[in-house]
Amino acid sequence: MDIALLGHGTVGRGVDEICAKLDGVDVTRILELPDRLTDERMTSNFQDILDDPDITLVLECMGGLEPAHTFIADALAAGKSVVTSNKAVVAHYLQEFVELAHTTGSQLICEAAVGGGVPWLSSIRQVRRIDEISSVSGIMNGTTNFILDAMHKGDADFAETLAEAQRLGYAERDPSADIDGIDVANKVVISTLAAFDALTTVDQIPVTGIRHFSKTDEETFKAHGRTVKLIGRAVREGDRFACAVEPVAMPDFTVEASIPSNFNILSLDAETVGPLKFYGQGAGSLPTGNAMVQDVLDYREGKRPAFRIDPDLIWDATLLTGDYVIRTTANLPVDGKVYGANARLIEGINAEEAYALLTTARETDSEAMIFARPRKALFK
Amino acid sequence: MDIALLGHGTVGRGVDEICAKLDGVDVTRILELPDRLTDERMTSNFQDILDDPDITLVLECMGGLEPAHTFIADALAAGKSVVTSNKAVVAHYLQEFVELAHTTGSQLICEAAVGGGVPWLSSIRQVRRIDEISSVSGIMNGTTNFILDAMHKGDADFAETLAEAQRLGYAERDPSADIDGIDVANKVVISTLAAFDALTTVDQIPVTGIRHFSKTDEETFKAHGRTVKLIGRAVREGDRFACAVEPVAMPDFTVEASIPSNFNILSLDAETVGPLKFYGQGAGSLPTGNAMVQDVLDYREGKRPAFRIDPDLIWDATLLTGDYVIRTTANLPVDGKVYGANARLIEGINAEEAYALLTTARETDSEAMIFARPRKALFK
Repeated sequence: MDIALLGHGTVGRGVDEICAKLDGVDVTRILELPDRLTDERMTSNFQDILDDPDITLVLECMGGLEPAHTFIADALAAGKSVVTSNKAVVAHYLQEFVELAHTTGSQLICEAAVGGGVPWLSSIRQVRRIDEISSVSGIMNGTTNFILDAMHKGDADFAETLAEAQRLGYAERDPSADIDGIDVANKVVISTLAAFDALTTVDQIPVTGIRHFSKTDEETFKAHGRTVKLIGRAVREGDRFACAVEPVAMPDFTVEASIPSNFNILSLDAETVGPLKFYGQGAGSLPTGNAMVQDVLDYREGKRPAFRIDPDLIWDATLLTGDYVIRTTANLPVDGKVYGANARLIEGINAEEAYALLTTARETDSEAMIFARPRKALFK
Repeated sequence: MDIALLGHGTVGRGVDEICAKLDGVDVTRILELPDRLTDERMTSNFQDILDDPDITLVLECMGGLEPAHTFIADALAAGKSVVTSNKAVVAHYLQEFVELAHTTGSQLICEAAVGGGVPWLSSIRQVRRIDEISSVSGIMNGTTNFILDAMHKGDADFAETLAEAQRLGYAERDPSADIDGIDVANKVVISTLAAFDALTTVDQIPVTGIRHFSKTDEETFKAHGRTVKLIGRAVREGDRFACAVEPVAMPDFTVEASIPSNFNILSLDAETVGPLKFYGQGAGSLPTGNAMVQDVLDYREGKRPAFRIDPDLIWDATLLTGDYVIRTTANLPVDGKVYGANARLIEGINAEEAYALLTTARETDSEAMIFARPRKALFK
């Protein structure tokens, strides 16, 4: 099978290397910038790839929104299937890509976009052959888990830990997409469609990151037997669904609290199979390249994974109702028990209400934070 | 697709119910005892199923070694593929079944035998399309994890906790296969073949269960920041491999230490994808029935998973060398640091040597116990 790569950076080279070792998968074309055409297979003209009738599968290894979006859309419109690990472009243009793929009978394949080398979207599809999935959730970002785990186990504050993560290559120079929760929100958008056929957008989801997570917050929750993790989640009941991305103070004894370093864990709940969890490296060029090649091999074996959009599913924020801790010096018009330094526990509000409270608090206290605080009895 | 069920007990009925809801999978024949033929599809003559040319797939839902072994062998010999969750019969007759399947081009499919509803063997196969697997390990038995978790979190001793597990249906009336580690050993035999193509037997593996795990042992390890889990594992280096089943004192901060109640976690390590872990219900009629039906659906989609036996792989116990804690009142000819009440830490012995020490100790102290004690630095 002939395939084309768009981009020959870290991920593209990794894919190229893995494919070279496999029988029957040939990288015959590579799109690169005009000044980087170091290989006979390379071209800087995407039309060369679209016009090649032997290429049925295109692997997008560029990252970013443009020109990745245009190339993916053009490939799908031309009836070529696309494999990508680019969660930002997939989440941003999900409806367009899914509709294009349906129209031309091509496939949008993005297993590597969520969980890296962890078989997450494929497991969701497998479970749904028999079961209804009622929730998906997890630690979906390695950078923030590295920071939270290091702060939980060591003495450094947020800024020092972020700097260490950058030094080790676990965080980018501009870490905003990770620490503000945007990367997780992209993965929640994709997982929500895979699990429920429900289309949402990053703008619809209440998203709180960990940029203002302080050493004092860490100590407050440690005193309560809890470990803070950045969790993305989506739930469904009947024809209603809701999603959130927020720091969650998990009881110390839970599996989620134990996830170390830059690892991910992705969980689903289904009727007959019960809860399933999948753990692994969520990023990195080798796990990501590996996952993209797994998608290629599945395609070669005849697997044709398809997303479906059910227009009857309705957003209902009340599905995510629980207890929250808000830590702020702002005056807020809510009651709540004292939970720690400047922190109050507010019971029985939903994720959108919690996010609105945080937004109000940040008008006068720009470093305010909010944390979901699930009841321990839920995990016994 | 027409399929036959052998047995209509708890698992068989569960499979029958799930299949009734699916399009295109018809249970047309069911083997049952002569006095239990309550349904037109039922027969007590296995030959009726062998002679039915429309049936290409037979689901063994009986349990036990005989007659399950004979029926599975006869079906494979007749060119019919077999789906089973019966780890005892698969582990016991693995070589015979694999060779029969190769001869006739049929398949032995036993995803549900290890990890219940957790996609374990299929993930091993998927990973191996690209990677070499260097180790598999995990908590593979829900009954013993329920007991160990309850003893870790509560005050009850082993006998009280086992009785509670029996009352809740998590342990059988005769719990020997679970608490003596035999069930885990069966799963290690199957996982070792799937991961490395290495054939072993339960008799070759050093197997220590938890029957004599005491409240004092629990307190000893708790004082060292460790949680005892029953772990099955197998490692490979080049053309050598080794396996063990033993209680392992895991550091409290590890994922394994956090696994609650009757859940399982299965781990593998591979070169490019790194460590992957899979968590879920390892047993129960719904997860098991679900996993067997997943096997049926994969078969219908054209998947033909095959085991292979590589005769050049050699058992080498030294691959599993580490530190062990032995707790006994027996006099043993080994030095070791004091670790707790009657417990000594012995460094740098392998799993077979540890098992031999335990066997010697039990000549005069029938309740002696041994525990692997991996170094904490391994998990940082």
